[in-house]
Amino acid sequence: MELDLLVIGSGPGGQRAAIQAAKLGKHVAVAERRDRLGGVSIHTGTIPSKTLRQAVLEQLATRPLDVLDPTRVEEHERGAIQQLMDRAAAVVAAETAITREQLRRNRVGLLQGEATFEDAHTVRISGIEESIRAQRIVIAVGTRPARPASVAFDERTIIDSDGLLDLDTRVPRTMTVVGAGVIGVEYASIFGLLGTKVTVVDQRDHVLPFLDGEIGEALQYLLRRNNVTFRLRERVEAVEPASDANGHARLHLASGKDIVSEAVLYATGRQGDTEALRLDLCGLECDTRGRVKVDDHYRTGVRHIFAVGDVAGPPGLAATAMEQGRIAALRAFDEPVTELPELIPTGVYAIPEVAMVGRTEEELTDAAVPYVVGVARSHELARGIISGDRDGLLKLLVRLEDRAVIGVHVLGTSATELIHIGQAVMAAGAGGLDFLVTAVFNYPTFAEAYKVAALDAANRIRAMS
Amino acid sequence: MELDLLVIGSGPGGQRAAIQAAKLGKHVAVAERRDRLGGVSIHTGTIPSKTLRQAVLEQLATRPLDVLDPTRVEEHERGAIQQLMDRAAAVVAAETAITREQLRRNRVGLLQGEATFEDAHTVRISGIEESIRAQRIVIAVGTRPARPASVAFDERTIIDSDGLLDLDTRVPRTMTVVGAGVIGVEYASIFGLLGTKVTVVDQRDHVLPFLDGEIGEALQYLLRRNNVTFRLRERVEAVEPASDANGHARLHLASGKDIVSEAVLYATGRQGDTEALRLDLCGLECDTRGRVKVDDHYRTGVRHIFAVGDVAGPPGLAATAMEQGRIAALRAFDEPVTELPELIPTGVYAIPEVAMVGRTEEELTDAAVPYVVGVARSHELARGIISGDRDGLLKLLVRLEDRAVIGVHVLGTSATELIHIGQAVMAAGAGGLDFLVTAVFNYPTFAEAYKVAALDAANRIRAMS
Repeated sequence: MELDLLVIGSGPGGQRAAIQAAKLGKHVAVAERRDRLGGVSIHTGTIPSKTLRQAVLEQLATRPLDVLDPTRVEEHERGAIQQLMDRAAAVVAAETAITREQLRRNRVGLLQGEATFEDAHTVRISGIEESIRAQRIVIAVGTRPARPASVAFDERTIIDSDGLLDLDTRVPRTMTVVGAGVIGVEYASIFGLLGTKVTVVDQRDHVLPFLDGEIGEALQYLLRRNNVTFRLRERVEAVEPASDANGHARLHLASGKDIVSEAVLYATGRQGDTEALRLDLCGLECDTRGRVKVDDHYRTGVRHIFAVGDVAGPPGLAATAMEQGRIAALRAFDEPVTELPELIPTGVYAIPEVAMVGRTEEELTDAAVPYVVGVARSHELARGIISGDRDGLLKLLVRLEDRAVIGVHVLGTSATELIHIGQAVMAAGAGGLDFLVTAVFNYPTFAEAYKVAALDAANRIRAMS
Repeated sequence: MELDLLVIGSGPGGQRAAIQAAKLGKHVAVAERRDRLGGVSIHTGTIPSKTLRQAVLEQLATRPLDVLDPTRVEEHERGAIQQLMDRAAAVVAAETAITREQLRRNRVGLLQGEATFEDAHTVRISGIEESIRAQRIVIAVGTRPARPASVAFDERTIIDSDGLLDLDTRVPRTMTVVGAGVIGVEYASIFGLLGTKVTVVDQRDHVLPFLDGEIGEALQYLLRRNNVTFRLRERVEAVEPASDANGHARLHLASGKDIVSEAVLYATGRQGDTEALRLDLCGLECDTRGRVKVDDHYRTGVRHIFAVGDVAGPPGLAATAMEQGRIAALRAFDEPVTELPELIPTGVYAIPEVAMVGRTEEELTDAAVPYVVGVARSHELARGIISGDRDGLLKLLVRLEDRAVIGVHVLGTSATELIHIGQAVMAAGAGGLDFLVTAVFNYPTFAEAYKVAALDAANRIRAMS
């Protein structure tokens, strides 16, 4: 029997592709390794790290102040990190169950085992020792942490973001994070908040260079205030694992500095998890980072094979992968399809949270688009004062020509939620500023920042005319 | 010297009116009683109750589990409620300072004392023993709790929402709340969460009848699960204060039942705080609830006198009062003005939060507007699972004719923030559903509920066609 569609990988992109095809009445199955249902997103990526973050935020509120005896602190912390990990495991289990149920409800078959191409229409599933034929195939295998060959990972003091979630010891006193991308910054902020002295090393000038400059600087400032040190424009030359003598790993930087810490977290990017696939047998190849090249419709060089999600390249966001999966499935069966919307928000789940949609000041200046800025700070908002969040910042970029909001940047409590208000206003186009100026917002809310920032921008425009 | 504008009252509406007039270059002053700068909203209304709510939510996470000795529990609780009140006081002080600074920065004079009309252009300020003349006047005195004459308030066991904030004893074991309006429901939910057995009495069939029926029922269900009992369709016939013997107050209901509790909170509405004004001397009168009648421009029967905010009637929301103040000031000086926008969100800061914008199912059915419903529940969302919020609910009402979103109802974490996404989508009009169906949302967020609900609504429409 031949499937209409085989999806390899059950993360957000693969799941959505399979369910979309099933809704079209197609015969669909998903191949996934045992114990990995839901993909990296559920098991080692988004879900565990966000759960850890949530638990840390809640646990800080509950840290008993009277535990002053150092041995008891250590005991308490060991218990605490175990609790954090238990909670992450519970959420992972719940999400896995939801994924299984969604596939079942939509009559999507589940093939448990590792997938390997035999030819362009046949895939061997190792777990069930079967070869599956399919008319169309979606590759959605995701990524895994990139591990530089020169680094001796020992899963104890030198780890990647997967290894981090297996740590069951106490919170390290010192940690070095190599790589100031989203994952590196998120974990640096979490451990900083737990009291770890964190050093972040990166070759670039700034963390998260895609952020608006002012927001990126604010984030660096707030992370520094929170136990994080940055070593930017620095290259790691060598890593010495911990010896039994001192239990500390040592990093040599090209600039001549050494950094010594209890733990080293490598977060230098991720690569397509395509090795086991044997892409050569279906007529495809991957790039040096293991990723598969696709066109605008997520179609690979082989017409009936598509690739979606992180294995197809940036931005590496679950929500984008889902939309890609939906679009690929519709394309695969020549169904009409709306393209990926232009406005895609980005969320960084650091502490504090950061989110953005649309353009940055730097992009607009380079493109010579005249704009004004409207800013609101949470310490001016009743909601900010009530919550004790005094560092929040919301920034609107407004095009002078038509008073359209063309960029929204938020830092602080619920930034990843609040950004969608701006996204909806941006979608409406011209005059978005005037909607916000006259809109009535619930009081007290953080959302009010949109009105405060809009009034600020409107005042600046008035002062210029 | 004569003012261009005198504003009586410094709450959200008065403040905004004064600042708007000052921005027009007018000579403006605000009259306010000593220690009341910022009005009821800051001192006894919105701000203290929302701070209490926030503190309770945070404190529940920190309640030590090992305090099992009953005397220590009581001691702990006494400390806890004192901490809650201290925190509220700190926020009130911060908000007062911000109000003072905003008036100063905008060159608005502050007249400290109670205002009483002498004639239609002259107001006596008792604190500074001066009579102030003004060409235009805005009345923004707000409201105070309505106190039925038959009830013997003793500020200890029989109190109103103002008295509640002066309680410095432990959390009562039992409490009766008379009145299931917004204030009654908010406090019932807070005390229920603190462990108080709360009974809510109201003559109506449902709490908060302006809510969409399904949301109102969900709220009642969740409050019941949380130590709250409802006695609806019940009228209070008499209240007996606590005798020293038992320390419990006793309510007699018209239906023959008695309710006995440590505390009785009267929340049976509010009335305009107009008594001291001597409205008769300026040619105005108030209704039986102390409120001043205004036209669509917030102008009273006397052409140069305006009234804004709660003293001018419903909806009793700070954000609406601000817009009214802005509009009244512009009208008073014959400046062009945009009217109050049609879409005004409503937020109820109960635990769980509720928010809505646009129409309810009941209204649409009565108006014979065909619609479909799209629902998302937080236990289906990764963000809901991570946070342990399994009760959240988001409901979109979509007009069949043009796929416009015409009502949004949210219950659960951050409902009062999330509602503004729906508000922005509704403002865009036709096709709002399609924007949400194709939009990419940050993952994991509660905002994703919009997409899940939109897909649900789109599927229902497809199934019908």
